[in-house]
Amino acid sequence: MSELVETLAARLRLLEDREAIRDLIASYGPLADAGEAQALAALWAKDGIYEVVGFAQAQGHAAIAALIEGDTHRALMADGCAHLLGPVAVEIDGDRATARGHSVVFRHGPEGFAPYRVAANRWTLRRSADGWQVVHRRNALLDGSEAARILLAPNQPAS
Amino acid sequence: MSELVETLAARLRLLEDREAIRDLIASYGPLADAGEAQALAALWAKDGIYEVVGFAQAQGHAAIAALIEGDTHRALMADGCAHLLGPVAVEIDGDRATARGHSVVFRHGPEGFAPYRVAANRWTLRRSADGWQVVHRRNALLDGSEAARILLAPNQPAS
Amino acid sequence: MSELVETLAARLRLLEDREAIRDLIASYGPLADAGEAQALAALWAKDGIYEVVGFAQAQGHAAIAALIEGDTHRALMADGCAHLLGPVAVEIDGDRATARGHSVVFRHGPEGFAPYRVAANRWTLRRSADGWQVVHRRNALLDGSEAARILLAPNQPAS
Repeated sequence: MSELVETLAARLRLLEDREAIRDLIASYGPLADAGEAQALAALWAKDGIYEVVGFAQAQGHAAIAALIEGDTHRALMADGCAHLLGPVAVEIDGDRATARGHSVVFRHGPEGFAPYRVAANRWTLRRSADGWQVVHRRNALLDGSEAARILLAPNQPAS
Repeated sequence: MSELVETLAARLRLLEDREAIRDLIASYGPLADAGEAQALAALWAKDGIYEVVGFAQAQGHAAIAALIEGDTHRALMADGCAHLLGPVAVEIDGDRATARGHSVVFRHGPEGFAPYRVAANRWTLRRSADGWQVVHRRNALLDGSEAARILLAPNQPAS
Repeated sequence: MSELVETLAARLRLLEDREAIRDLIASYGPLADAGEAQALAALWAKDGIYEVVGFAQAQGHAAIAALIEGDTHRALMADGCAHLLGPVAVEIDGDRATARGHSVVFRHGPEGFAPYRVAANRWTLRRSADGWQVVHRRNALLDGSEAARILLAPNQPAS
């Protein structure tokens, strides 16, 4: 009996892990569009990296928050924007995880809304004493480049 | 042993709550695009509110169903439309919950598909004898207005 | 006590089923955009069908992989594309399940990104010894046709 309960507890924990990772990633877009720079940066580990290929590589909470407080993002928010992230495919290996999925930034302009950026994302996450955190998010425009496509492929070594 | 099992049951229930809320919101778009007005309205509590800032505020099943059966929505369906809702960030506090996320309405026209509405959404939900129901959904275009951005910020008092 | 634990186990299994189905569908888009034809085809049962109304009906792993390796999809990848699938509403009935949701294909071109296809999807899935697999995915453009809208309605007999 005790063994069965332990097995259930382990299965439950795995679902909780997946739920925590999904919710973390689902909260990125709302925080970005609300301009909540500190809360957004806190999704990352203290030494976490947010890499936007060809645009920025920010490491640490202050640098990541600065992306949200910076001119580019503030101009986007003033125009009107939506950072829509799709569902993610999640692979967990103990205290490490990878999530793959798309992001689309819609921007509002005089002629209405348009997809401004459409990108591939590969998130590497780590379990910490404070729960799951982003170690590395790589984002690259899906403009035909191999660099973006490989972010979406499974079974790559975690960074 | 009994205590451990009770703890597992409580953790399981929290995951079930999150799953129920996620599934409820994921079913909104398919019901809207299929024109299933009654089933869509039944996602709300009897006194629930669907507020589309600057367009409509409907309270109760009959009023919400009327939005789906109304001329605006029927014209959209005749043209071809997709009510795509992104993943939601969910916060549960006992029998109340909040979910934040984006919605995009694509509309078909002579030149193909275009994003017609891109909006912020804040859902307030309540557990009832019939399961989770929407008490209030606020939707506002992400056109640069503060009204839309604040819907996506965390830690606001539930309505 | 034993009965309570069995009840918990059954509830846990249902959540695991929903999680497995959600993750399977969330992995479709990343695999399509990475060009991982074999891994993508393996989401389907051996006799599974991928039906794109008005374009293709592929049955079996080889035929489904051929869609990803074919000229149409390779041209899309060379231009740059994102197969963004929205969250799905899932209904499970024992070893069968149905999932309903949207898909949007963004295509990159000289003037940036545009929504190239916006479609309704109805997935029928079956539990096998190897886990959940797709038996039938129907996809139809939401261009105003009834054929697409009915894919999104609930409570239809599984195929």
